[in-house]
Amino acid sequence: MSTPTDHGRPGSAPEVAPPVQNAPSPSHAERCRTLAQRARTATLCTLARDPAGYPYGSLVTVAVDAHGRPLLLLSALAEHTGNLKVRVEASLLVAEPAEGRADPLALGRMTLIGPCRPLEGAEAAAARTTFLATHPRASYYVDFTDFSFYRLDPVSIRYVGGFGRMSWVEADEYAAAEPDPLAADAARILEHMNTDHADAVLAYAKALAEIKDATGATMTSVDRYGFELDVITPAGPKVARLPFDAPVSTSDEVRKAMVALVREARGRST
Amino acid sequence: MSTPTDHGRPGSAPEVAPPVQNAPSPSHAERCRTLAQRARTATLCTLARDPAGYPYGSLVTVAVDAHGRPLLLLSALAEHTGNLKVRVEASLLVAEPAEGRADPLALGRMTLIGPCRPLEGAEAAAARTTFLATHPRASYYVDFTDFSFYRLDPVSIRYVGGFGRMSWVEADEYAAAEPDPLAADAARILEHMNTDHADAVLAYAKALAEIKDATGATMTSVDRYGFELDVITPAGPKVARLPFDAPVSTSDEVRKAMVALVREARGRST
Repeated sequence: MSTPTDHGRPGSAPEVAPPVQNAPSPSHAERCRTLAQRARTATLCTLARDPAGYPYGSLVTVAVDAHGRPLLLLSALAEHTGNLKVRVEASLLVAEPAEGRADPLALGRMTLIGPCRPLEGAEAAAARTTFLATHPRASYYVDFTDFSFYRLDPVSIRYVGGFGRMSWVEADEYAAAEPDPLAADAARILEHMNTDHADAVLAYAKALAEIKDATGATMTSVDRYGFELDVITPAGPKVARLPFDAPVSTSDEVRKAMVALVREARGRST
Repeated sequence: MSTPTDHGRPGSAPEVAPPVQNAPSPSHAERCRTLAQRARTATLCTLARDPAGYPYGSLVTVAVDAHGRPLLLLSALAEHTGNLKVRVEASLLVAEPAEGRADPLALGRMTLIGPCRPLEGAEAAAARTTFLATHPRASYYVDFTDFSFYRLDPVSIRYVGGFGRMSWVEADEYAAAEPDPLAADAARILEHMNTDHADAVLAYAKALAEIKDATGATMTSVDRYGFELDVITPAGPKVARLPFDAPVSTSDEVRKAMVALVREARGRST
């Protein structure tokens, strides 16, 4: 599903390696649903009334329904809402939180493209419940008379997972995919591993990813199937993906799997 | 220049107060230039080729030239670049870094709207120098043959500075405005004041902003003319702006001004 990029790399540029392992990994549809699940803010793109013919980007808060469709709480006073009243065509850029990644272009992100329309009746009531669960502070203004709920119904989805990992995802595949069960805990797990177990992370890089000249390693993502590393070597940066023995679905299962992999790494390096 | 919003606020909603002081503050053009100066990533909006008729949002890294015009380093392999080759109409959403703000809609942001075209010759060389100074890691791929520099020339600018502070900014006003001299230091100053001088920040809220029932206060922005506070009170959240006695332009001048204001606050409260 991944389409490798084909950058015309001059000889002098350091290597930006694709994942070196052929490890199982989330599908792009699953990665998109996970991004959606974690999203709190996004950029809404609408078609401007003035200057006409231009696309207009604006900041919005977002929650998603059970099918991964973005729910927005928009004020009639905002420029984007006026735009949507004239033209429903919209897209929403959702990006992974930066959380200390040195290179923002390594972040996962997706663009959900589709019509964005106001909800009414039971759909608006359901959106309200979902939205307030994600954004409790919105209770301060959810009942202002100028605010209404809108939903973007994706017809086309573009996924970009960093360098060399991008594709179009079918709308029905997206709707059917499951968000990663670790989505809510991933940031905390990465922080813990990189801060408290830097030696283990480097051992994974050297012994399991077989990057023997690694001088440093950072865990950059974790999901039910495994995790990814940014690795520093004298020859330049590399990335690697390592699998768990079996898919995990809780923080506790991740902890056990990480401990087992440290034992394996240390066994191999002696 | 500020157009107050007129939300239809129901009686039960807590107050989201506008700044209570009539203190001097940066113009919206100055605030926009400061946002541009600090920007490292942004959302580029282009007009999609497929699905045609839709706006397309994507993540880009950005630097700005001396006139506040965004410079982008784009790959011919990216969807947005293909879009720009067919239609130059674009916009760029630049948002203030979140840095711990609880409510993302309180963040300052702007949309720069205008044509976005590739640069050639001397303009491309100058863009390269500026871009690499802002993004040193881009040296890894700046010479890939599929990458080119683009510039967005703003014709229309929308500024949103949080609740009740928004306007259209004229392109020539934007080009002529100065970024705030504290832009690069503001985050560090806020962190320092909120972490190490929380008592002083609360004293400013009570004695200088005259929010006598304040139970907590956070400094949320600082600029050459003064600073802003989010204040917690039993009646709900309030915001306030306090001026320096005279405009400042360095961290050291900010420090002296803050110390003088603490003395004033403590003098008033005794």
